[in-house]
Amino acid sequence: MSALGDNACSGFQPLNPDDVRSYLHKAVDFISDYYKSVESLPVLPDVKPGYLRNELQSAPPTSSAPFDVTMKELTASVVPGMTHWASPNFFAFFPSTNSAATIAGDLIASAMNTVGFTWQAAPAATEMEVLALDWLAQLLRLPPSFMNRTGGAARGSGGGVILATTSEAMLVTLVAARDAALRRSGSHGVSQLPRLAVYAADQTHSTFFKACRLAGFDPANIRCIPTGPETDYGLDPARLLEVMQADVDAGLVPTYVCATVGTTSSNAVDPVRAIADAAAVFNAWVHIDAAYAGSACICPEFRHHLDGVERVDSISMSPHKWLMTCLDCTCLWVRDTHRLTGSLETNPEYLKNDASESGNVTDLKDMQVGVGRRFRGLKLWMVMRTYGASKLQEHIRSDVAMAKMFEDAVRADDRFEVVVPRNFALVCFRIKPRGGMTEEDADEVNRELMERLNRTGKAYLAHTVVGGRFVLRFAVGSSLQEERHVRSAWELINKTTNEIMLEPEQIVVE
Amino acid sequence: MSALGDNACSGFQPLNPDDVRSYLHKAVDFISDYYKSVESLPVLPDVKPGYLRNELQSAPPTSSAPFDVTMKELTASVVPGMTHWASPNFFAFFPSTNSAATIAGDLIASAMNTVGFTWQAAPAATEMEVLALDWLAQLLRLPPSFMNRTGGAARGSGGGVILATTSEAMLVTLVAARDAALRRSGSHGVSQLPRLAVYAADQTHSTFFKACRLAGFDPANIRCIPTGPETDYGLDPARLLEVMQADVDAGLVPTYVCATVGTTSSNAVDPVRAIADAAAVFNAWVHIDAAYAGSACICPEFRHHLDGVERVDSISMSPHKWLMTCLDCTCLWVRDTHRLTGSLETNPEYLKNDASESGNVTDLKDMQVGVGRRFRGLKLWMVMRTYGASKLQEHIRSDVAMAKMFEDAVRADDRFEVVVPRNFALVCFRIKPRGGMTEEDADEVNRELMERLNRTGKAYLAHTVVGGRFVLRFAVGSSLQEERHVRSAWELINKTTNEIMLEPEQIVVE
Repeated sequence: MSALGDNACSGFQPLNPDDVRSYLHKAVDFISDYYKSVESLPVLPDVKPGYLRNELQSAPPTSSAPFDVTMKELTASVVPGMTHWASPNFFAFFPSTNSAATIAGDLIASAMNTVGFTWQAAPAATEMEVLALDWLAQLLRLPPSFMNRTGGAARGSGGGVILATTSEAMLVTLVAARDAALRRSGSHGVSQLPRLAVYAADQTHSTFFKACRLAGFDPANIRCIPTGPETDYGLDPARLLEVMQADVDAGLVPTYVCATVGTTSSNAVDPVRAIADAAAVFNAWVHIDAAYAGSACICPEFRHHLDGVERVDSISMSPHKWLMTCLDCTCLWVRDTHRLTGSLETNPEYLKNDASESGNVTDLKDMQVGVGRRFRGLKLWMVMRTYGASKLQEHIRSDVAMAKMFEDAVRADDRFEVVVPRNFALVCFRIKPRGGMTEEDADEVNRELMERLNRTGKAYLAHTVVGGRFVLRFAVGSSLQEERHVRSAWELINKTTNEIMLEPEQIVVE
Repeated sequence: MSALGDNACSGFQPLNPDDVRSYLHKAVDFISDYYKSVESLPVLPDVKPGYLRNELQSAPPTSSAPFDVTMKELTASVVPGMTHWASPNFFAFFPSTNSAATIAGDLIASAMNTVGFTWQAAPAATEMEVLALDWLAQLLRLPPSFMNRTGGAARGSGGGVILATTSEAMLVTLVAARDAALRRSGSHGVSQLPRLAVYAADQTHSTFFKACRLAGFDPANIRCIPTGPETDYGLDPARLLEVMQADVDAGLVPTYVCATVGTTSSNAVDPVRAIADAAAVFNAWVHIDAAYAGSACICPEFRHHLDGVERVDSISMSPHKWLMTCLDCTCLWVRDTHRLTGSLETNPEYLKNDASESGNVTDLKDMQVGVGRRFRGLKLWMVMRTYGASKLQEHIRSDVAMAKMFEDAVRADDRFEVVVPRNFALVCFRIKPRGGMTEEDADEVNRELMERLNRTGKAYLAHTVVGGRFVLRFAVGSSLQEERHVRSAWELINKTTNEIMLEPEQIVVE
């Protein structure tokens, strides 16, 4: 073999040891400074669409630059345009909780940069994912039927996988349920697809209805079942049964029911066991979406929300929401992995290997949309390994206690109402109509309150609509948050409410 | 507001500043040591399925532990079970190239942990992703019709998004094409879905055929068009036209064609322009999958492989393969984002905001499967910003030069043959049948060669089957790789081939 000339073989080393150390240390310094200063930054930035294009060059540079230049642009141009999810004054959506251990784990995963499509392509990454899922299943007291038993004689049919999003968990289980229903219906190919029907409450995340469309379900057969205050916006199983029976009577095939434990809008909880009972009548797949509230179920006092889980087909929850694990980390467990892999398996020649052919291993590509996959199990395992069940529970309870403190303050102030019972660390509240105010006026006042709060940069709250009314969502739990931040936010809400109420157009006679 | 008692408000700080610094510095030290030692570790580990369960405790710990315990278990139990994609002796699959700048970028993204579903939820993250995609589009000389023009009067209809995998890029474009074809066919709901047909060469990645099934296409209408050596295993456009016409004659609706630039099996290239011409006859969507080889197209000498791209509907490529960006990073560009968002949009109350309603911003959740999303643009931008076009091209050219060096050595040795022309940095080669050996014997000898090489731990090669023959794939480009590693691998191949050939059962009379 003749040596390459100097021109051919580059001197460029993208993983030069000095660069790796120096760039990463600079990144760690940046993060330390960022966490120190983020409290004082406006949570929601005051930037206009397209702002970044005006800050940074519009074409990629030709030549390399010192890493300091990159970091300087990051600090000068990117940070001021961030919505700071890490801010302790962030109360919008659900917090993306985080921890030192998970960031370290994800950093190592980036550096190893394995692609664990098959067991053989990354044995430790595959087994770590399996182990982390089994650990978490134990913390959640999921039935053993959902656990992996890779590599032993006792390998069961259950198992799990870490996906990027809840939507993906819904999609892959929808596809498995769809294919099973097609087989049951004696479908020739997808000829019977227009007959399949799927079900969820109207409080279910919109991404469920999107996932149904992605999987090819007929939009006319995607049932969105109304809920109301009489069930605290949880799905009424009797209503579900009726709707499914009507569909059967009309020649349709009930295929899949999505039950939510802790809806995004208001943290409503669908009754799992009763829904599983209803679905069983029609042999429909039942999935539990516990994206946010699943994390709380590691505490015995919240575990009852999952009662009946042993009767469902699959459950997903996202440690990247409330279990101090950085994105992306959605855990999906299924009772029968073969139903999943039956729909999702691929077997190209270039991935064939003895381990896969032995049937003794899990090839995680067969439980997800894609082929490639990061070493996602590491950051989740590092959280559980480092903090242990007790700290994880402490973290949940602390957030819930702070939310309760806020809720108590709202309840004690008769200008406000708590709109739905607080189940976890989300408080849904609003200014009540008073005096001559109509409900519509109150909606406007609440919207004004939210916009003014958010414009201060000192707090960021999002809203929802529950029972037709505009409602503020106060979600506690951002990982730098302490009691004093909740207290300050409440003071800001008070002050801003006073300002609004005292303005001429809002003055009302009581 | 009454203060929380000590019991309620936890003292646990998951982002305690000292922990953040200390854990991350330990992780950086680990990474430095890992990169230093990885060359000497067996590339493919010698572990049995279930090994990790025997190393680590099977239940999650109750109490917290010092971070050093976590790191110790990582080093002692996880590392020995890794397939080392970072090893310079890794020649399997395609390398997952990496760089100091991208790891730093991904680390910062983990720490900020934003969830950029809408522009408002993360303006800088959204705009950084848009900017990074526009930069990369410029490096690839994609037509302006694929570029984002967020926030300006000149906003066009094109745009991009960073997804986790090529599979997701295929899935979302398949769904958009499916819905367009259903509308064209006057479908009532999905009633016409059984009539839609999709097309790709038999060398197309198996994940394409899976994505078609996920999107609900009838398995009977998923065409896998045979290729052969006469087109170097590229899709023959005349053949495509025939198959599509036959489908139309049979009452089917050609909906989508997937063209690959650089197939996984052998780096075959489908002729983009001619395929676009064929598809245009039937108004079918054309997608280019350039997952691996797309990166090479930033060099003028490889750009011709994309000629005709201005005629296609979408193109995806994965910087996490060959552009020194760590997983997950697949870039998708579409010519008309409205076709994508028309199928993927959701609009729940709790995500509504003024910016989205203005129509001036891109809400990236509407171009992907999920809602949540990491700040993926940062690590890609940091690569381009730090290294510049020149270093990126140098990196591609260096890998190609090393692959050519290896190819020349194979060609100069008459025991071997190069099975398909080398297009990029992948060499597909095999031991030729000699003497009384049949082709089947040669397949066995090549399999034996691969297995022996991989058992040494000093190299890891994967295989494929091309034209019915077992072929070794030698993929150059792992980011720590230098010329000497390619040279050593060739010496090992030589030596191992000699050993096999000299064994009694392999001795052949010439």
